[in-house]
Amino acid sequence: MSSRPASGTTRSVDEYRDSIDQLLRPLAARAVATVPVPQALGRQLATDVSSPVDLPVFRNSAMDGYAVRADSVAVTPVTLPLAGVVAAGNPGETPLPSGAALKVMTGAPIPPGADCVVPVEHTRSDGDTVTIERGRAAGEFVREAGTDVRAGELLVPAGVALTPRHIAALAAVGLAEVPVFEQIRAAIITTGDELVPAGTPLRPGQIYNSNGIALAAALAANGVEVVSVRHSTDDPAEFRELLHAATDSADLVFTSGGVSQGDFEVVKDVLRPLGGTFGAVAVQPGGPQGLTVFEGVPVLSFPGNPVSTMVSFEVFARPILRQLSGLPAVELRELALSQTVRSPAGRRQFLRGRIIPEGVEPVSGQGSHLVAGMAWADVLIDIPAADTEVPAGTTVSVRAL
Amino acid sequence: MSSRPASGTTRSVDEYRDSIDQLLRPLAARAVATVPVPQALGRQLATDVSSPVDLPVFRNSAMDGYAVRADSVAVTPVTLPLAGVVAAGNPGETPLPSGAALKVMTGAPIPPGADCVVPVEHTRSDGDTVTIERGRAAGEFVREAGTDVRAGELLVPAGVALTPRHIAALAAVGLAEVPVFEQIRAAIITTGDELVPAGTPLRPGQIYNSNGIALAAALAANGVEVVSVRHSTDDPAEFRELLHAATDSADLVFTSGGVSQGDFEVVKDVLRPLGGTFGAVAVQPGGPQGLTVFEGVPVLSFPGNPVSTMVSFEVFARPILRQLSGLPAVELRELALSQTVRSPAGRRQFLRGRIIPEGVEPVSGQGSHLVAGMAWADVLIDIPAADTEVPAGTTVSVRAL
Repeated sequence: MSSRPASGTTRSVDEYRDSIDQLLRPLAARAVATVPVPQALGRQLATDVSSPVDLPVFRNSAMDGYAVRADSVAVTPVTLPLAGVVAAGNPGETPLPSGAALKVMTGAPIPPGADCVVPVEHTRSDGDTVTIERGRAAGEFVREAGTDVRAGELLVPAGVALTPRHIAALAAVGLAEVPVFEQIRAAIITTGDELVPAGTPLRPGQIYNSNGIALAAALAANGVEVVSVRHSTDDPAEFRELLHAATDSADLVFTSGGVSQGDFEVVKDVLRPLGGTFGAVAVQPGGPQGLTVFEGVPVLSFPGNPVSTMVSFEVFARPILRQLSGLPAVELRELALSQTVRSPAGRRQFLRGRIIPEGVEPVSGQGSHLVAGMAWADVLIDIPAADTEVPAGTTVSVRAL
Repeated sequence: MSSRPASGTTRSVDEYRDSIDQLLRPLAARAVATVPVPQALGRQLATDVSSPVDLPVFRNSAMDGYAVRADSVAVTPVTLPLAGVVAAGNPGETPLPSGAALKVMTGAPIPPGADCVVPVEHTRSDGDTVTIERGRAAGEFVREAGTDVRAGELLVPAGVALTPRHIAALAAVGLAEVPVFEQIRAAIITTGDELVPAGTPLRPGQIYNSNGIALAAALAANGVEVVSVRHSTDDPAEFRELLHAATDSADLVFTSGGVSQGDFEVVKDVLRPLGGTFGAVAVQPGGPQGLTVFEGVPVLSFPGNPVSTMVSFEVFARPILRQLSGLPAVELRELALSQTVRSPAGRRQFLRGRIIPEGVEPVSGQGSHLVAGMAWADVLIDIPAADTEVPAGTTVSVRAL
């Protein structure tokens, strides 16, 4: 099967996503950097990391109490001579005299000759002796060396994005640094003569450029390093030049706008002659899509309506980008639809929705220009292409935004 | 009800969490900074933000096609004279001549006099005229000004941590910067003579200090800025000095270790005389806990076992910190337990668990020192204090790590 569907035919969401997945999958093999463990949060581990030490490193006490031999406390109460104190950090090499007790703190080494710990709560001491009120079996409140992880055993597997609990494990075995993959580097080029930057007064016919800022935020929130955000007018020479610059530093380029049926479709006009695939995907919003390899770099071309751009990112790019960065998959849930919705025949629709106690409700207004309304959504509701009306109460698939 | 339960009594998890919540709640009122919208991802909006403009800013076309008056295309096919082209970005002030069509691109202003758009797919044009093959009613494929959001209308409410979709909305209305709360600033002080930094060879009785690194990662992952991570020996003067330095720059201090029943409990020994509440909470792991206000700054004192520290953070600190930073609540789910578990009477137990297709399974080894094992967990399984045995198949509450 070709990874590049023929231009001109309408592709399904799954077919198109498969094409993108195949094109991006080589980005899994990225350069490796060594970073200090305290700076490794969220970074993707590049190799399996095994523990360099047993953990616990040595046999130690699970409680503040008294290290004894279990047979010395088989009958209680019993009063034993107190042979000393072992704090945490003490080398713990003094053996326990036969029939005596050694006071031990949590984490302190169990002295040679002791085989259990009696917690301080079940003892009384006058400083010279300790009275044990409850016996313990051999092994109780003793943490054996290597019971958490053994030296050489796998600690954290390659490929995961490190969470605080991975950082805790890496630090606990004394690793100062770890090998991680460099982040995927993306460049963004927005297009359109009508777009102006935030903070500029609008002239008639102009709108604010939000796609660059929004895509950059979405990429950053999904483990991708954004190396540049640029804007091109509808001048093909300008767009081509920006694209050329983008591929110098990026593993992946996103464009917005210039892909549909108008007279001035700069992205399509420049990239289609270079082998780009442009055409319709059976999805709403976000129907017109383009996919090109430009100077060896994948270029994903999304339509320019702000909601189309964001939904295209969610549906076509976010799942594979998270997978390539070792992040947990986008959460999918099945929820009851709060109200009947209509959907165009033959197009899979992603409605912006909001989780409510009863299930999920579409947020008001589903036009692809309704970017302010999208701020109130927390999920996309996935309406299959075949459905034209989905009654209230139907269980629908939703994906977290 | 006092927010500071009496020392010496065993408190429930909920009582203790309420005490912490009350102590930390004033941290909701933090200084406000103005940041550029592209740098505002994850920051907590400090005020309600209303839209400065109508969105759409002007009445525009939802499609590439032809702007006409609906009554000109009531009977189709019909051929109309083509009066020109309106690209996106065109001021759009040329009125539509009566009985004519103007070619419009998606996003272009609808010319005065037009009331609908016929998509290009349902037309044929020779350049001078356009033949309309399917009529449209007034309003079709026209986006009216202000239908997404009106000038002055609430766009994003105060208090939320900004996600990519909020960033998209703020950018779309042309806002260049937004007011956000400064992050909560936390300092961490680990304690214990036995702890040495990563990368150092261990002498007998020593272990690696992981709590500082792990807590810092956990705080950073939950919207908190970590201003310092320091380590104190069990010398009270050193600990007091580090604590004093920490409260200079932090809104909140976390300590680990030095809170239980041993002879050298530096945190408890220093803070209890200063009004700190130290004692048992009916929880496993993490039973001994301390809570102090030192020089006006809340100090949360967790036990020193690595898993106790991390579980204490999850149970007692993370929920309120996320709330104070506007982040979504920790996800709670109900899942079937894969195997029977035993639990100590009278203590609420948080088992490390892993989600599997059939429900949730405890990860092997539940000792509070098993930090390597915790790396394989993705949830905490919440076993109520009253339960001593929970059979396989029971529905249990789990919280995402």
